[in-house]
Amino acid sequence: METKKVVIVGGGFAGLNCAKGLLNHPGIEITLIDKRNYHLFQPLLYQVAMASLGSAEIAQPIRALFGGGKNIRVLNDEVVAVDREKREVVTLYSRYGYDFLVLACGVQHSYFGHEEWEEFAPGLKTLEQATEIRRRVLSAFEMAERETDKQKQKQFLTFVVVGGGPTGVELAGAIGEMSRFTLANDFWHIDPSLARVILIEAGARILPSFHPKLAQQVARDLEGLGVQTWTSSTVTHIDKDGVTVGEERILCSTVLWAAGVQATRLNQALEVERDRLGRILVEEDMSLKGDKNIFVIGDQAHFQHHTATPLPGLAPVATQMGRKLAKNIKAELSGKPREPFSYVDKGQMATIGRSKAIVEIGSIRFGGFWAWVTWLLIHIYYLLGFKNRFFVIIQWAWAYLSKGRPSRLITGAYWRFYGQKK
Amino acid sequence: METKKVVIVGGGFAGLNCAKGLLNHPGIEITLIDKRNYHLFQPLLYQVAMASLGSAEIAQPIRALFGGGKNIRVLNDEVVAVDREKREVVTLYSRYGYDFLVLACGVQHSYFGHEEWEEFAPGLKTLEQATEIRRRVLSAFEMAERETDKQKQKQFLTFVVVGGGPTGVELAGAIGEMSRFTLANDFWHIDPSLARVILIEAGARILPSFHPKLAQQVARDLEGLGVQTWTSSTVTHIDKDGVTVGEERILCSTVLWAAGVQATRLNQALEVERDRLGRILVEEDMSLKGDKNIFVIGDQAHFQHHTATPLPGLAPVATQMGRKLAKNIKAELSGKPREPFSYVDKGQMATIGRSKAIVEIGSIRFGGFWAWVTWLLIHIYYLLGFKNRFFVIIQWAWAYLSKGRPSRLITGAYWRFYGQKK
Repeated sequence: METKKVVIVGGGFAGLNCAKGLLNHPGIEITLIDKRNYHLFQPLLYQVAMASLGSAEIAQPIRALFGGGKNIRVLNDEVVAVDREKREVVTLYSRYGYDFLVLACGVQHSYFGHEEWEEFAPGLKTLEQATEIRRRVLSAFEMAERETDKQKQKQFLTFVVVGGGPTGVELAGAIGEMSRFTLANDFWHIDPSLARVILIEAGARILPSFHPKLAQQVARDLEGLGVQTWTSSTVTHIDKDGVTVGEERILCSTVLWAAGVQATRLNQALEVERDRLGRILVEEDMSLKGDKNIFVIGDQAHFQHHTATPLPGLAPVATQMGRKLAKNIKAELSGKPREPFSYVDKGQMATIGRSKAIVEIGSIRFGGFWAWVTWLLIHIYYLLGFKNRFFVIIQWAWAYLSKGRPSRLITGAYWRFYGQKK
Repeated sequence: METKKVVIVGGGFAGLNCAKGLLNHPGIEITLIDKRNYHLFQPLLYQVAMASLGSAEIAQPIRALFGGGKNIRVLNDEVVAVDREKREVVTLYSRYGYDFLVLACGVQHSYFGHEEWEEFAPGLKTLEQATEIRRRVLSAFEMAERETDKQKQKQFLTFVVVGGGPTGVELAGAIGEMSRFTLANDFWHIDPSLARVILIEAGARILPSFHPKLAQQVARDLEGLGVQTWTSSTVTHIDKDGVTVGEERILCSTVLWAAGVQATRLNQALEVERDRLGRILVEEDMSLKGDKNIFVIGDQAHFQHHTATPLPGLAPVATQMGRKLAKNIKAELSGKPREPFSYVDKGQMATIGRSKAIVEIGSIRFGGFWAWVTWLLIHIYYLLGFKNRFFVIIQWAWAYLSKGRPSRLITGAYWRFYGQKK
């Protein structure tokens, strides 16, 4: 039997699970290409930004995950184009031929045409962004402590989070909790618990994918942490001094962006049908329309079959897609037909600070402490396979008992921080 | 009694221990100023660079260390000058009056007048530098894996460490071990164990502060990890393609700098007597010549009384100086005389990869596995006071058993990494 070359682009949940499914399967040669050397456990990235976890706790070198694999090679490289005629992917350094191409490149933040806002309002997709957000939030308290002008002090102690989805809620809740508990006794001039945290959502309510009752409960929990929710509020301008919401103006030194995503540049390079966000429309078997040998999975795909809306960009969707695709490729090589993909929804959840969460599994909905315990257990379960799960659990337990934040370090370009001096 | 203002500049071992000694003492008001928000356990910094530890494991927010203190304020700021007439320190943001000024600013790397080498050969003094070194070392293996030109591949797999002191030995040993053990099975095109590691020392032998026998044993241990030691070798040029040593030329993509330190800029701003390295000469009570109210402690000081050479820039020296100074300040406030400082040498040690070390305590000298165990226990002991000691021990134990490197992440400016493409 002739060996088939499978090229997988992207080592996120989708790509990784597809590669795992094909590992050590006879007749298949896998090339996994990622521009990072690690797989990131994205659902906990906000905890790195909020100084509860270190980078290494939620990241694992892709190479190490496949250390024993015979039929896989992992390359640290970036795909810039696909040559569909020659059946090759073009990377920064070379070209790689494929029989099956799996695109699992994920998405990036969208500023709705205002890319100039990114400088003032970083998003949260990468470890570097998480470190940058941590630096900004912690630095704001330090700058407030040093400041003598009361007006400027207030500006340093104002935090705006744009976007009322799960990430925005988690970030806002964590800032509220940090200011009320972790930092409460560490300052002399300022009272960190006077910090204003504002969560801005363009839609009529936060967490639109959840039941209205749960979303309402979250808004109340957020209030308890000092977070005010502004719904039906569209950001019209962001600069270094603050945020403009319609005709209102908030002066603040820290803005975080958790609103909206768009496809990566690669999608534009492919001449295929895309949706409004740039995601690629795929068939029931996750292949491109008109090209049975190219698949798109994970956040990068617009998959809409049997459902009213496209599947959401969540880790469980990406994981299931990757696994199913591996099965389909193996089936096809043994002469069996491909099966259509369908997502098994195991529910969704979100956390609000420490010790509160909401869980929605079909018609089962609950919030509060036990929802948080559920959230914790499920995330621990999904961290299985990560060598660091043990440390994660210990760090969490420690942080939970002590209300500490073990990674409260301002690192990175600290001269930029000083660049903000008056 | 009138309250005395003590301003401490620098939150390293010297400054921190001085502040701890004065904490909650009546009649004293402490201001601790550091440009970082954290205290760094510098002796383990090379383990962050070598991916065995995460940043948070060896760093602790200074603010959190003094959370309960009544007579201290911690400021995240940078001292740029000292106004000795007005008795004020001048920072980027403000001025602070002092009755006693304690300078504990440490040192930075010296490139012996070749500052242009820094770009190609980063030193190891800060967390950012440790992350940068980690990025370069791990990226070199990734680039070699992708490379098809055999000559370039060899260049990527050549690592040069300049400086045969403890830091240079620890870095070279760790790279050797990483290539021989951690990465051995993770690549397909390259054999990481073919990596060349060269340790370059200008003097006649490595580890000049240790007994020649121990230094010899270290050189042999390093050979076992594939590290070749070049002594009596002076680096005359460094650029992006390699290192020139006299008339020899080594092509390599990674050079690390562990040779020579110099005083920080602040020392030049003070009009005081300095040594060749820019360190400030101090009296027996650690005060400046001619100014009894200014003290210099830690690496920043040139302290030479009762000894043939100035005290070395080591954590135990800095710690003892800080503690003694706190005692002296308290004594003076109760009308007692200051006592001269004298260093109690508790010995020195260095590690070579995992499981080997050398220990020298007076005339007691030993190496090998038990020296490593001693090294480990003593470092664990000194990590006491750090909340993270528990995680550090677990991470170490884990890494030791598995030969893994839990923090094998290439982060930071990854586009710079791609900037190195051919």
